[in-house]
Amino acid sequence: MISIRPTRLQEAAAILRLAAAEPLFTAEEADTVNELLTDYFEKPDHNGYFFLTADLDGQVAGFACYGPTALTKGTFDLYWICVGRDFARRGIGKALMDRAQVEVRRAEGRLVVVETSGTPEYAPTRAFYEKLGYARVATVPEFYGPDNDLVIYTRKTSLS
Amino acid sequence: MISIRPTRLQEAAAILRLAAAEPLFTAEEADTVNELLTDYFEKPDHNGYFFLTADLDGQVAGFACYGPTALTKGTFDLYWICVGRDFARRGIGKALMDRAQVEVRRAEGRLVVVETSGTPEYAPTRAFYEKLGYARVATVPEFYGPDNDLVIYTRKTSLS
Repeated sequence: MISIRPTRLQEAAAILRLAAAEPLFTAEEADTVNELLTDYFEKPDHNGYFFLTADLDGQVAGFACYGPTALTKGTFDLYWICVGRDFARRGIGKALMDRAQVEVRRAEGRLVVVETSGTPEYAPTRAFYEKLGYARVATVPEFYGPDNDLVIYTRKTSLS
Repeated sequence: MISIRPTRLQEAAAILRLAAAEPLFTAEEADTVNELLTDYFEKPDHNGYFFLTADLDGQVAGFACYGPTALTKGTFDLYWICVGRDFARRGIGKALMDRAQVEVRRAEGRLVVVETSGTPEYAPTRAFYEKLGYARVATVPEFYGPDNDLVIYTRKTSLS
């Protein structure tokens, strides 16, 4: 059974293991997850990052990280979403995305923004967002690197 | 005579006055300039933000803030550029942008990214970037607010 809940301190190690094991994340990206998770626990009342844990039958199977986008009115970034390879193809990613949308709407968010890469390795990731109703609105050529475009997706909440 | 140099501690108050007086900046945006400036002075060796001051005949006439974009290879963000209204139309903005490009190239940067608003108030700002050779590569509808798109410009350095 899948359940999604705000991430608890005792799940931090499992989440960092998932991030470190994710083939699509660079070491720098996994370190960034660590930094954001530390902020989330240390500044629970006034930080810009929120984490959700996906629990599958008592195991930490995935996580998502989102937060309000600075200098915007009602826009939220979905910074990271990750499901362990052992837990793939069970709807865990969709469950995390659905819950993030609910939380954003609850926080009076209008728009969820997802940034990803345009490389072939990220084709399944892009297909995943598109299937969930995210619209591909923009591309910034060579943003991540000489052969690595930024692709931006957005999805409106019911408050839009 | 215009000169551009890395911002010094004794110029902080003048820069914050320029940010506070800039009609296009919200109070939240002026506060953000303050936060980034504090980081710049407190963590000179390992911070992500660099400030340039434009000096016109001994007066602080403008500033720019740029830094490497996290999780990219060789991309830099130009976060802020501001010229005091009393010092307009003397090429100070262009001098700041030119120096920022030089500094980015010196730091082995490939690409400079500028994010701005699509509202009519920002039409002169967009024209300014376009005149300096920045290409309008992307728009994210309703990013800043319900009637306020994000417009993204990029310019390659000679290292691209």
